Amino acid sequence: MSSPFAEDVPNHRNTQRLEAFSDGVFAIAITLLILEIKIPKHEDIERFGGLASYLTHLWPSYLAYVFSFVMIGIYWSNHHWLLRFVYRTNHTFNLLHIFFLMAVCFLPFPTAIFGEFFTNPALQIPAITTWCVGFFLPIAPTLALILYAFRRHRLVHPRLNRGFMRNLVLKMVASLTFSLIAIASSFWFPMIALSLMGMMWLLFFLPPAEPVYDEEPTGTME
Amino acid sequence: MSSPFAEDVPNHRNTQRLEAFSDGVFAIAITLLILEIKIPKHEDIERFGGLASYLTHLWPSYLAYVFSFVMIGIYWSNHHWLLRFVYRTNHTFNLLHIFFLMAVCFLPFPTAIFGEFFTNPALQIPAITTWCVGFFLPIAPTLALILYAFRRHRLVHPRLNRGFMRNLVLKMVASLTFSLIAIASSFWFPMIALSLMGMMWLLFFLPPAEPVYDEEPTGTME
Amino acid sequence: MSSPFAEDVPNHRNTQRLEAFSDGVFAIAITLLILEIKIPKHEDIERFGGLASYLTHLWPSYLAYVFSFVMIGIYWSNHHWLLRFVYRTNHTFNLLHIFFLMAVCFLPFPTAIFGEFFTNPALQIPAITTWCVGFFLPIAPTLALILYAFRRHRLVHPRLNRGFMRNLVLKMVASLTFSLIAIASSFWFPMIALSLMGMMWLLFFLPPAEPVYDEEPTGTME
Amino acid sequence: MSSPFAEDVPNHRNTQRLEAFSDGVFAIAITLLILEIKIPKHEDIERFGGLASYLTHLWPSYLAYVFSFVMIGIYWSNHHWLLRFVYRTNHTFNLLHIFFLMAVCFLPFPTAIFGEFFTNPALQIPAITTWCVGFFLPIAPTLALILYAFRRHRLVHPRLNRGFMRNLVLKMVASLTFSLIAIASSFWFPMIALSLMGMMWLLFFLPPAEPVYDEEPTGTME
Repeated sequence: MSSPFAEDVPNHRNTQRLEAFSDGVFAIAITLLILEIKIPKHEDIERFGGLASYLTHLWPSYLAYVFSFVMIGIYWSNHHWLLRFVYRTNHTFNLLHIFFLMAVCFLPFPTAIFGEFFTNPALQIPAITTWCVGFFLPIAPTLALILYAFRRHRLVHPRLNRGFMRNLVLKMVASLTFSLIAIASSFWFPMIALSLMGMMWLLFFLPPAEPVYDEEPTGTME
Repeated sequence: MSSPFAEDVPNHRNTQRLEAFSDGVFAIAITLLILEIKIPKHEDIERFGGLASYLTHLWPSYLAYVFSFVMIGIYWSNHHWLLRFVYRTNHTFNLLHIFFLMAVCFLPFPTAIFGEFFTNPALQIPAITTWCVGFFLPIAPTLALILYAFRRHRLVHPRLNRGFMRNLVLKMVASLTFSLIAIASSFWFPMIALSLMGMMWLLFFLPPAEPVYDEEPTGTME
Repeated sequence: MSSPFAEDVPNHRNTQRLEAFSDGVFAIAITLLILEIKIPKHEDIERFGGLASYLTHLWPSYLAYVFSFVMIGIYWSNHHWLLRFVYRTNHTFNLLHIFFLMAVCFLPFPTAIFGEFFTNPALQIPAITTWCVGFFLPIAPTLALILYAFRRHRLVHPRLNRGFMRNLVLKMVASLTFSLIAIASSFWFPMIALSLMGMMWLLFFLPPAEPVYDEEPTGTME
Repeated sequence: MSSPFAEDVPNHRNTQRLEAFSDGVFAIAITLLILEIKIPKHEDIERFGGLASYLTHLWPSYLAYVFSFVMIGIYWSNHHWLLRFVYRTNHTFNLLHIFFLMAVCFLPFPTAIFGEFFTNPALQIPAITTWCVGFFLPIAPTLALILYAFRRHRLVHPRLNRGFMRNLVLKMVASLTFSLIAIASSFWFPMIALSLMGMMWLLFFLPPAEPVYDEEPTGTME
């Protein structure tokens, strides 16, 4: 009755394929960003008085490209860091993970909106709000993923330290709160929203903490 | 005369490369969906009275993005589940598989049609029909794949349970029937078609059954 | 002085990374095809008298999608078949391989030209010629790749049968000739060119021959 | 307190995942190039007097496609060559690497600008400058990557020869200088800039030097 394939454990699987698929999705989402920097049409060039002037006028698009590229790159890096200690997966985690990837893949859209409309005074505020929303979207499913995986050491190593897990959850709750504040403030104080996002972006560059393991398992496996 | 490479078995090969290639295709198809949410032009923004109003007006596009993203994500997940017990491949299975991937890769097109024209009363019905067709397209080659692989245990483990295989075939025949009903009803009762698709979509979230293996092989290998 | 990495053999390397990179390129080229089926604008729909009529009018695009998807899919499949016996690579082979991938990645362009302009009587002939050229482009670098790899058993197993290699070269020379005839005839007899391409396309479905190995090495390794 | 996963070494990791992710990014960036060759609209065809005439008029786009495709292909090839002796990575190297990939992914944009505007006399100079800048962008982060990895044998094998490393750094400094000269000269002597780039491009075809290892470690591991 049992499966003839040694590696088959019912319900729980290793994360190898989840990682391969995610690597692909990250790689594509990051590369699609360049498609949002639009090649000018002849009338655009005339409007801006030459190709050189058009290309320098694109600076918010370049800024958005750099910002989003680094952000997706660091999400990719942190994702691998996370899957070093979340070392198993199941159907529910896979589904939550799809929602996480959905939020990451959405990033080219707010990036393009920001790049296109930031320099237009009438549209600056919604352009900034859109970008803040895009920044916020992957944080919520990340929090859901770690809460689900950490709950009673469900998908992590039984010796993974509880304090380490608590710190990570707190950090994600803080990120969530900050990005909600950024969204809210973007309606009235767009430059404060931009600064908050810049600050959070710089914090992304910090290396993630090394996972801590107890000598004895303290969690109960489900 | 025989091949010097140990892993070379004439005609039958393992599915490793088929999976790697499919992972790539799934990852790209899922990521391309965002390209179908169009960045507005200045005249679009004027027509809708502002960027914020334009962006909220895009709700069918967001809905279609979420719906199709989850659908491709779950196809990816079920594909891996399938290739756990369809553990070998041959030339014919590879060809059938190309038609399956072709149907999956087609999904961004009906998704975009739906997102673009659903809110236009005159075009709502063909927009819904198109989406139902897109939903239906991958089901037929999936059925062909499993019928070919299951026939006399052709590409599955000899101990794989016949009842398990029969159930899976029945489930795919039911999906095929439901999606054909959705397409047909979309012409006269578009909202019923949408509800049927929503129901099928929710059923997608259920975890697939664990494969069942007999103690003794009951199938004959070809 | 020698490399401390066991797998490092100067100049010759295994093909693992070449395959992984090629799998990625094939997967993306095949998925990009859907982007060439254009979402209609409102004026297109009015011109064709409705969305349903527009969508049925797109049949050459669907045809080109299916044709090119299968073609890239089978190139992928045959590429893996080739790299079973071309089991090593070097710098020159990698460079030739880049030109091969360049020709494969070009396919979405002639596919789109064909789908867009085939039904326009004034543009039908150049649309067909373009497609024939797209079909022809990957054949020349494929021939270069196998001639380079087979020459004095340069990158293949020393026991690989000479007759098997000769047959493969002849088959590629025949494909090259046929596609040149298709290009030439497309200027005056476009339907004959289309038929030739359809025939070659159907021949693609045939499984490739199993490689044949001699009992004793007959080639000299360089 | 220590990690239960054998392969976990704090701070330093192997480069396997960095390579898989980079392979994906290279594969996508190289394939996106074809999207920059635009499918003509009916008015474009009328303006150029026919489809055949339009397609031949696209020659700078084809040239840019071939040039950029080969360039990304060789970057991919050299990247693998580099990661044979830079065999470990850490957080800082990963971040620098993201900037390197960002520069590679930017290439479709200057490629499209060049292809679109090179034949327009009024826009030829900025089109060439843009392309020179695109060519230059990946060189700076490549230099940063090797300087960081080589510094006191930080991420390379302790026996890697110092002279070999010095030569590689010198080669990258020379490339950087040449491409800055190409950018500067493009403003006044665009054809000289193009020739410089063509020369650098041809030098790309040369196989990279084999890494040299000393008998005894001469570097100190940090």
